[in-house]
Amino acid sequence: MSILNSDGLYLEDVHVGMRLVSATHVLDAEQIKAFAAQFDPQPVHLDADAAKSTIFGGLVASGWHTAAITMRLLVESGLHLAGGVIGLGATLKWPRPVRPGDVLTVHGEVIEVTRSRSSPDRGTMQLSAETRNQNGEVVQTFVSTVLLRRRRLAN
Amino acid sequence: MSILNSDGLYLEDVHVGMRLVSATHVLDAEQIKAFAAQFDPQPVHLDADAAKSTIFGGLVASGWHTAAITMRLLVESGLHLAGGVIGLGATLKWPRPVRPGDVLTVHGEVIEVTRSRSSPDRGTMQLSAETRNQNGEVVQTFVSTVLLRRRRLAN
Repeated sequence: MSILNSDGLYLEDVHVGMRLVSATHVLDAEQIKAFAAQFDPQPVHLDADAAKSTIFGGLVASGWHTAAITMRLLVESGLHLAGGVIGLGATLKWPRPVRPGDVLTVHGEVIEVTRSRSSPDRGTMQLSAETRNQNGEVVQTFVSTVLLRRRRLAN
Repeated sequence: MSILNSDGLYLEDVHVGMRLVSATHVLDAEQIKAFAAQFDPQPVHLDADAAKSTIFGGLVASGWHTAAITMRLLVESGLHLAGGVIGLGATLKWPRPVRPGDVLTVHGEVIEVTRSRSSPDRGTMQLSAETRNQNGEVVQTFVSTVLLRRRRLAN
């Protein structure tokens, strides 16, 4: 998905099968702990020693941290929409933990584009996105419903 | 859902219909902008003036910020699980924007409890949670699959 103009993409510019690959994000223990201290204060995200005795065997990122990083990668690299990226909802799975040192990349694909019946100026797309680590392993799957503007037609 | 012991709740302690109401979180523009600068750098979350011309008519929080605050409220008030709160996935909707000054509370309910067939030491629950603002309006709905430990049986 490329930037077609300075406004970003409209519904008319987006079609099923469009793909994007984001930039990468390198995660470290400090970021994991800082996010967790604010939003998910549990030993498995805060304390490498305490995390050793959990089912993860060491420090792992909060799933919400992975989701937030995924959003940043999408907004900053590839998903340039007219009116911004406004999500109405999302379904997430975290099949594998994210650990310090992991390098994350988002691979996205448009799987549905729908015009609004009630509002002729807008529609939605379903964006499916996998967040993968440096080994190509999927650490998060994500399907999001994102608002799209339609182009204004001249009178 | 109350704390039954210092270990937290096991699968055997949780049943469908259990409810919790979290503490509250007061959101302000500084928090909204700080989260957005890190994870969702878009004008509608970063710049009150620029946000005026969007469909929201003013600064609103990133949905991922609302999700992260919801997690904090759940972890800190009410959801005390043995082994911690480990989410395997979640479905989110953001029916209404969250604005500076909003006071958020999470209302949760266990809607399903399932023993693992393959792993006798664990199971999952489905937790349904609404995040509501100070007017009782729902700003996020959330259904999450959360890991639960089973109690160890003595030999």
